[in-house]
Amino acid sequence: MKATRRFVNQLQPGETLDQVFLVRDKDLRTTKSGDLYVVCTLCDRTGTVAARMWQASEAVYNGIPTDGFLHVKGRTEEYRGQLQFVIDSCRPYSAEKVDLGDYLATTAYDVEEMWGELLEILRAVKDKPLRMLIKKFVEDKELVAAFKRAPAAMQLHHPFIGGLLEHTLNIARAAKALLGLYPQVNADLVLAAVFLHDMGKVAELSAGITMGYTDRGQLVGHITIAAIWVAEKAAAVAEETGEPFPQKTIDLLQHIILSHHGVFEYGSPKLPAIPEAFFIHYLDNLDAKMYMTTSAIENDPDPNASFTSYVRALETRIYKHSDRLDREAEKDEKPGKLFQ
Amino acid sequence: MKATRRFVNQLQPGETLDQVFLVRDKDLRTTKSGDLYVVCTLCDRTGTVAARMWQASEAVYNGIPTDGFLHVKGRTEEYRGQLQFVIDSCRPYSAEKVDLGDYLATTAYDVEEMWGELLEILRAVKDKPLRMLIKKFVEDKELVAAFKRAPAAMQLHHPFIGGLLEHTLNIARAAKALLGLYPQVNADLVLAAVFLHDMGKVAELSAGITMGYTDRGQLVGHITIAAIWVAEKAAAVAEETGEPFPQKTIDLLQHIILSHHGVFEYGSPKLPAIPEAFFIHYLDNLDAKMYMTTSAIENDPDPNASFTSYVRALETRIYKHSDRLDREAEKDEKPGKLFQ
Amino acid sequence: MKATRRFVNQLQPGETLDQVFLVRDKDLRTTKSGDLYVVCTLCDRTGTVAARMWQASEAVYNGIPTDGFLHVKGRTEEYRGQLQFVIDSCRPYSAEKVDLGDYLATTAYDVEEMWGELLEILRAVKDKPLRMLIKKFVEDKELVAAFKRAPAAMQLHHPFIGGLLEHTLNIARAAKALLGLYPQVNADLVLAAVFLHDMGKVAELSAGITMGYTDRGQLVGHITIAAIWVAEKAAAVAEETGEPFPQKTIDLLQHIILSHHGVFEYGSPKLPAIPEAFFIHYLDNLDAKMYMTTSAIENDPDPNASFTSYVRALETRIYKHSDRLDREAEKDEKPGKLFQ
Amino acid sequence: MKATRRFVNQLQPGETLDQVFLVRDKDLRTTKSGDLYVVCTLCDRTGTVAARMWQASEAVYNGIPTDGFLHVKGRTEEYRGQLQFVIDSCRPYSAEKVDLGDYLATTAYDVEEMWGELLEILRAVKDKPLRMLIKKFVEDKELVAAFKRAPAAMQLHHPFIGGLLEHTLNIARAAKALLGLYPQVNADLVLAAVFLHDMGKVAELSAGITMGYTDRGQLVGHITIAAIWVAEKAAAVAEETGEPFPQKTIDLLQHIILSHHGVFEYGSPKLPAIPEAFFIHYLDNLDAKMYMTTSAIENDPDPNASFTSYVRALETRIYKHSDRLDREAEKDEKPGKLFQ
Amino acid sequence: MKATRRFVNQLQPGETLDQVFLVRDKDLRTTKSGDLYVVCTLCDRTGTVAARMWQASEAVYNGIPTDGFLHVKGRTEEYRGQLQFVIDSCRPYSAEKVDLGDYLATTAYDVEEMWGELLEILRAVKDKPLRMLIKKFVEDKELVAAFKRAPAAMQLHHPFIGGLLEHTLNIARAAKALLGLYPQVNADLVLAAVFLHDMGKVAELSAGITMGYTDRGQLVGHITIAAIWVAEKAAAVAEETGEPFPQKTIDLLQHIILSHHGVFEYGSPKLPAIPEAFFIHYLDNLDAKMYMTTSAIENDPDPNASFTSYVRALETRIYKHSDRLDREAEKDEKPGKLFQ
Amino acid sequence: MKATRRFVNQLQPGETLDQVFLVRDKDLRTTKSGDLYVVCTLCDRTGTVAARMWQASEAVYNGIPTDGFLHVKGRTEEYRGQLQFVIDSCRPYSAEKVDLGDYLATTAYDVEEMWGELLEILRAVKDKPLRMLIKKFVEDKELVAAFKRAPAAMQLHHPFIGGLLEHTLNIARAAKALLGLYPQVNADLVLAAVFLHDMGKVAELSAGITMGYTDRGQLVGHITIAAIWVAEKAAAVAEETGEPFPQKTIDLLQHIILSHHGVFEYGSPKLPAIPEAFFIHYLDNLDAKMYMTTSAIENDPDPNASFTSYVRALETRIYKHSDRLDREAEKDEKPGKLFQ
Repeated sequence: MKATRRFVNQLQPGETLDQVFLVRDKDLRTTKSGDLYVVCTLCDRTGTVAARMWQASEAVYNGIPTDGFLHVKGRTEEYRGQLQFVIDSCRPYSAEKVDLGDYLATTAYDVEEMWGELLEILRAVKDKPLRMLIKKFVEDKELVAAFKRAPAAMQLHHPFIGGLLEHTLNIARAAKALLGLYPQVNADLVLAAVFLHDMGKVAELSAGITMGYTDRGQLVGHITIAAIWVAEKAAAVAEETGEPFPQKTIDLLQHIILSHHGVFEYGSPKLPAIPEAFFIHYLDNLDAKMYMTTSAIENDPDPNASFTSYVRALETRIYKHSDRLDREAEKDEKPGKLFQ
Repeated sequence: MKATRRFVNQLQPGETLDQVFLVRDKDLRTTKSGDLYVVCTLCDRTGTVAARMWQASEAVYNGIPTDGFLHVKGRTEEYRGQLQFVIDSCRPYSAEKVDLGDYLATTAYDVEEMWGELLEILRAVKDKPLRMLIKKFVEDKELVAAFKRAPAAMQLHHPFIGGLLEHTLNIARAAKALLGLYPQVNADLVLAAVFLHDMGKVAELSAGITMGYTDRGQLVGHITIAAIWVAEKAAAVAEETGEPFPQKTIDLLQHIILSHHGVFEYGSPKLPAIPEAFFIHYLDNLDAKMYMTTSAIENDPDPNASFTSYVRALETRIYKHSDRLDREAEKDEKPGKLFQ
Repeated sequence: MKATRRFVNQLQPGETLDQVFLVRDKDLRTTKSGDLYVVCTLCDRTGTVAARMWQASEAVYNGIPTDGFLHVKGRTEEYRGQLQFVIDSCRPYSAEKVDLGDYLATTAYDVEEMWGELLEILRAVKDKPLRMLIKKFVEDKELVAAFKRAPAAMQLHHPFIGGLLEHTLNIARAAKALLGLYPQVNADLVLAAVFLHDMGKVAELSAGITMGYTDRGQLVGHITIAAIWVAEKAAAVAEETGEPFPQKTIDLLQHIILSHHGVFEYGSPKLPAIPEAFFIHYLDNLDAKMYMTTSAIENDPDPNASFTSYVRALETRIYKHSDRLDREAEKDEKPGKLFQ
Repeated sequence: MKATRRFVNQLQPGETLDQVFLVRDKDLRTTKSGDLYVVCTLCDRTGTVAARMWQASEAVYNGIPTDGFLHVKGRTEEYRGQLQFVIDSCRPYSAEKVDLGDYLATTAYDVEEMWGELLEILRAVKDKPLRMLIKKFVEDKELVAAFKRAPAAMQLHHPFIGGLLEHTLNIARAAKALLGLYPQVNADLVLAAVFLHDMGKVAELSAGITMGYTDRGQLVGHITIAAIWVAEKAAAVAEETGEPFPQKTIDLLQHIILSHHGVFEYGSPKLPAIPEAFFIHYLDNLDAKMYMTTSAIENDPDPNASFTSYVRALETRIYKHSDRLDREAEKDEKPGKLFQ
Repeated sequence: MKATRRFVNQLQPGETLDQVFLVRDKDLRTTKSGDLYVVCTLCDRTGTVAARMWQASEAVYNGIPTDGFLHVKGRTEEYRGQLQFVIDSCRPYSAEKVDLGDYLATTAYDVEEMWGELLEILRAVKDKPLRMLIKKFVEDKELVAAFKRAPAAMQLHHPFIGGLLEHTLNIARAAKALLGLYPQVNADLVLAAVFLHDMGKVAELSAGITMGYTDRGQLVGHITIAAIWVAEKAAAVAEETGEPFPQKTIDLLQHIILSHHGVFEYGSPKLPAIPEAFFIHYLDNLDAKMYMTTSAIENDPDPNASFTSYVRALETRIYKHSDRLDREAEKDEKPGKLFQ
Repeated sequence: MKATRRFVNQLQPGETLDQVFLVRDKDLRTTKSGDLYVVCTLCDRTGTVAARMWQASEAVYNGIPTDGFLHVKGRTEEYRGQLQFVIDSCRPYSAEKVDLGDYLATTAYDVEEMWGELLEILRAVKDKPLRMLIKKFVEDKELVAAFKRAPAAMQLHHPFIGGLLEHTLNIARAAKALLGLYPQVNADLVLAAVFLHDMGKVAELSAGITMGYTDRGQLVGHITIAAIWVAEKAAAVAEETGEPFPQKTIDLLQHIILSHHGVFEYGSPKLPAIPEAFFIHYLDNLDAKMYMTTSAIENDPDPNASFTSYVRALETRIYKHSDRLDREAEKDEKPGKLFQ
């Protein structure tokens, strides 16, 4: 079906469709004349469209999954200037038969390639206990599978399937590029901590068909979860080797994870107190801000505005045309003097 | 020796002593004439006195322990208005032969009685997994031994041997007294969390002969340490029972521990998000503030002042005479109008 | 009429009604064809419903009270998925004939019983001037009548008729339960201050048919109002006894009132500087937070969500299922790992 | 055309109009039947009205200016309780033929008179370099023309044509009135800085037909812009005189400009560090707050409310009746006691 | 004795004195040889000098007043580079026989003239209740006597006898000068509030021989004290006239007093919510800052520094030479470029 | 003389010296017997030592320079446990004859090599106006000479001769290493801004024999100074080319300079609003923090402590042993459990 798939952002009024959408927010309502109808939202990775199914029944309504896939037949129309989809018939569709990439925002990069490059960078770690600790994480198949799919955040940055891996790799690359400039920094510790600093997001966020926070994510948070995992995997290493895992290494790794948000207000229970913690804090922030500014610019709806709308997380609007400085670029500018 | 012990706060100029002190801050110096002498501080639980030993040698200096016990012979004298001790001879003394209670500030209550009362209160917990979890902590002898000796804080409140237990028991009593007024609160969760909320201080603080933060305490902190211990003990319960420990119970217990400081600025990575977390946050604070105000009043050096000196942690000075309201009490007051 | 009253939260489309509602937000509008119609809101203690009266006139409009009672005849219908009431005829209705409890949210407890219990607790005060001061307040019939009806706050906690008394009694009970644990605290001062700490709300809030802030409440505030009342009642005691009221007692009582919000940002012009002020600050907060969390959980509209929506005053969402920990309770949880 | 102009706040349903409006937010849409229509907003200085033009074409749409003037023929009607304008025909209209005062909010005072009075006050400056510096600004015709038209702010205070001059003059008058009371303050420096402190707004805000921030305003800001202009004009004075302009005078003037917002959070890179900087900071704030409170009171839509709605910039609502204290004025008040 | 008085800031080593000082901080100590000696501090309005009296006895020590006057005979000498006074004999001296102005820092202006000018300005109040209220304060002789002597603050500004009156008059003059520029401001309210805004300092500060906070000042504070006094004096007016004092006037006056610190953090329980409150807030701040900057400059000990030392209350150092801009003034400057 | 120079940190009691020091804080005092003596401080780049010259005269005192060089003869001795230098004779010494590197802390790198590498990196800028702008700065010989000597800050980081260049080069290297990872970032803008972002420190700090803030530095600050210089140099380019310099380029460059501190509280009048501004903000911070942590560790006086003393600018103490993780490293740790 994919060959002929029409994505939401391609739809025009008057199209007839016979394909699968992700369905959300279903509701059963009554018309003035007492007839039942279904209101719901159809989604794919490019957007959402409101849908209605007239002459519905409770049975039909119950047959529509909550946060699942729906094969619909029907047509698009315009209603009050908005596109709307009228469902003629529908049936639930198995999640296993769809290509999730059609429905969920996903990293633009190849996940396995990214994972391979990340492992390659981690191979530079020389300290034996750290190597074994990393290995314990890498060999946890379930965890790694989840790590490869997790977003890096719900909204702020890299909020898509594979985003956590993409963000982690970006920081690993940057760390690799800068470690040579700061030889006083413990490279082994930095690389291990880059890998693990946001690992807890795998349990904080549920990134199935719909993305959200898990209860454990809200009650405990990815920072503490990752710190606990370090303790658990270190215990597993100790069991394997029959020797205690160096406590100092655990402490330092947990310290970096706990302090990587940099300030208390963002949920770090400790402030950075070793060079490596500052190192990761800044590279993490840099990568997040690069994403956030670029994304704010790309997604700004108004092509005529030279600034994006206000970005709350950055406490400012972002100027959209710093990328070019040539003479033509001056035309981007709004005149700076009054009445000229 | 205890029978005849003179405590520091009893010493007068002109006394001859032959007894043991805790010694700190030793230093080897040279007089103008080139002779060596030792400067150090002698301590017991009532205070400290400066000491000098003239005609010393490097060997003598090296024989004096760092943060250990010293048997001294010598005499007190006054020097520039301050009491000073002149050491005639000295030799190191084994920590095992002393009664630590003579040297270290200690709870005024019987430790075993407090521990017994705390266990009695915890017996009210009905939820089976929580009971087993508490049991795992109670059966960890090394941990319990340390818990009974730990202070509740370095300086702010209950900063003495047994202080953590005293503080924990106070909160347990208060919780027991108030749980009946708030039936919506999960009493099992509250009682377990009262027991465990500050347990991590056992590893955060080192309370041997001198009190201080451990490296792990500074890098990781008691809040995260306790959260990790909950995970570890729950795993031990699961291993024992062969059933998974309820994850929800772990999450809630860890949540209360993580959020019990109430705000991010004090190192809580999560804000309270269940009634039980608020419950413990306020009772914990109440007990700490009761200690801090009472202690500030008792230790204020100026008997004529109606306010203590500024207490930084409370951002104010404390009024010392709110305990009595009778007519005589008015005389505590400084006149409130000008020139009367 | 009460026997047959249909409450707002019971209404279905297609019902015919002939009963009294509280009416708000009336507006006179014109249809496209130029006819006048009235739009207003009908309320009782269970909710509100939009209403329209077609073919209205200015006279009809003017006859509808602003924030008063209206006897309506008409029928319910559904309009755009929302319930709506169409008024056929209406007439104003005297507030004296209604049972306010049908229209205004009210404490679930018996007001006179609560008042009696509060007085019983206050009877423990031994200091004679404080006893006389409390008596002056208790004998002020108008004030007591208002105190029994006042809400404890506009929105945050106990925002209903009788809420101030309920909240005050809760704190008094908690104080009674804890005073034995902290013998250094002046019990007389605590009990008197519990009674008076929020008394100024009687003048800050107007809790007639609609609840709101009075001008004096906004300009001066309940904290300063209560402090002034203490001065006035103490002067009345002094006049009665012919002796000056102890100034120290006034100062301490005013201090607790002024500082009971605990921090400047919440409108306390003084920080707590006596143990009793901290004592009341924490019990006050504890009771408010117990109400706020329980209320957020009970009123959360989404039964499937394990967290309430964001509660601004608590800066977090509240987890709704901390009340039970049994194995079944695990099902409350959203899965914590990705794609499971 | 002005004689017969109907202002937006005078319009009633059913009027036929043939006049010019300022047009904004134009959009081309499609009806269900596929026909094109234009949606836009018509404005003058008294308000805005939504407009639609049916049976439109792309050519018509393109002919309508973006943020320009439009001569329309058509009629008003009510749509869902809101006034709406239906355009029958329209054509763009030259900005040069309109009286901008009909379309843009403007100072109520005579601009040239204000300018004259400001220059008169500045004549009191005695220091020769400062006099020459002021002269350089006054002689910059383009700058002065813009200065006379600029608003003082986008929203907060004096947000209208001529507002910057009005605000500057107000401060100059206040400075003149108070300088005698504080002889330690350098009057020359104060007067020059009053003139220049907000001058950068001329380049920060574009106050043409629509008001907004320029790109330079958002990227650099009026504070830095004004500091740069002081450097440039001082260089021009130096060139003219052949002597270096006193660097100290430049530094102090720039310091006052940089620090006049008083705190870092409002964009001042320096805190006031000379008496003159505090002097201007407070007079500037006083004038802004007088405008903001008066304006909040005058524009409050609800005549029955004794307080305005919440004013975010003041973090409070404003009481509307402090202007009169006579006995009748008491009736403004809402009763302060419960149920009376 | 005054004719021949040597002030502390005039003393040189080797002088013989026979005159009265204010004495503070007396202490009885023992020399190495066991003799008693007295250490104390002698003060007048120009400074303090350390003093010692050898061969003292407990009787002599007890005869020296605490915070009182002492007639001493003795001589000055230098000890470790500091001036010291050696007392040969001494006897207590009656406070009634001294000219307090020799010992306490005092306003440089004539108190009665300032008071007269203040009353003259207040005469402009037209509202009858306000006039009567002001009269009640003016006729309270004890209060007025204290008002004339009180400092405006302990340290921040006008911390000397008469400072409160001087500060109040300064604001009254500024208000008088600016009220004409802001006709929307209620002048009666402003003038009454200027008079009363800091009146509570009379009870907050004790300005006898030593200056300090009273207990009531620390527990309740001048803001609440003044608000209570307004209530009490208004009640007195009502009693006199037999009519209720307009509540609205009380509310507004109390509001200005409560909000005049402008922000919660400085102890205002309400934010300014009427133009008059902002008006007084800024004039109050302006006068305080003018004092603080001028005083920091005048008292800076280092004549070579172009900035004062750090002024904590202003969060900056103050530049000392903004008063002159002539060419010579450039020499005040430190060179601004490196290595020139 | 250098061959035989004894540095301050090498001195022992009993040495005889005949060499040059930097002299500070000279003072003329009188002994008890009335003789004059000079107290001063002798410094070189390794530390300071107190010095006294007995039997001095006013002429000798006046001959000692303020913040200059002094050739002294004399000897070291110990006084109260501190080293002290007794000057027998002295004479001023010309600054031109000394090697400043002996007296002032200096970068450990070769200045000309660093400058060469920086220019090499800047050569990658392609935008022609930016190239010309950079050239104008590079060709300003006086500025470049000062830039090469300036420290990067007074205390926080790189506070030594050449520190600004070292810090700037570090950021340039890091930018070069990371620009490839973020292709959306305008590399030309970044490189130019790295060069100029702290350039204003050349005028903010005076780094002659003693380091300090200039008046202009304190009143205006390096951020605004650099923004002004960009305007001036751009004007010079425009004059040279006869074409206007692109305003947009100026705006963006000034924006990065203004916002590079990242938050208002650190003196940035604008928050970062382009990706390039965030880029520089983080690399700048990273380099500063790497210096601060390393320097805190290296300079910590206590070899036994595993944490440095509290570092105010980082709000924490720094752990000193994160550089090594091997088994031996565990011994750095303080035991983490109580009483073990």
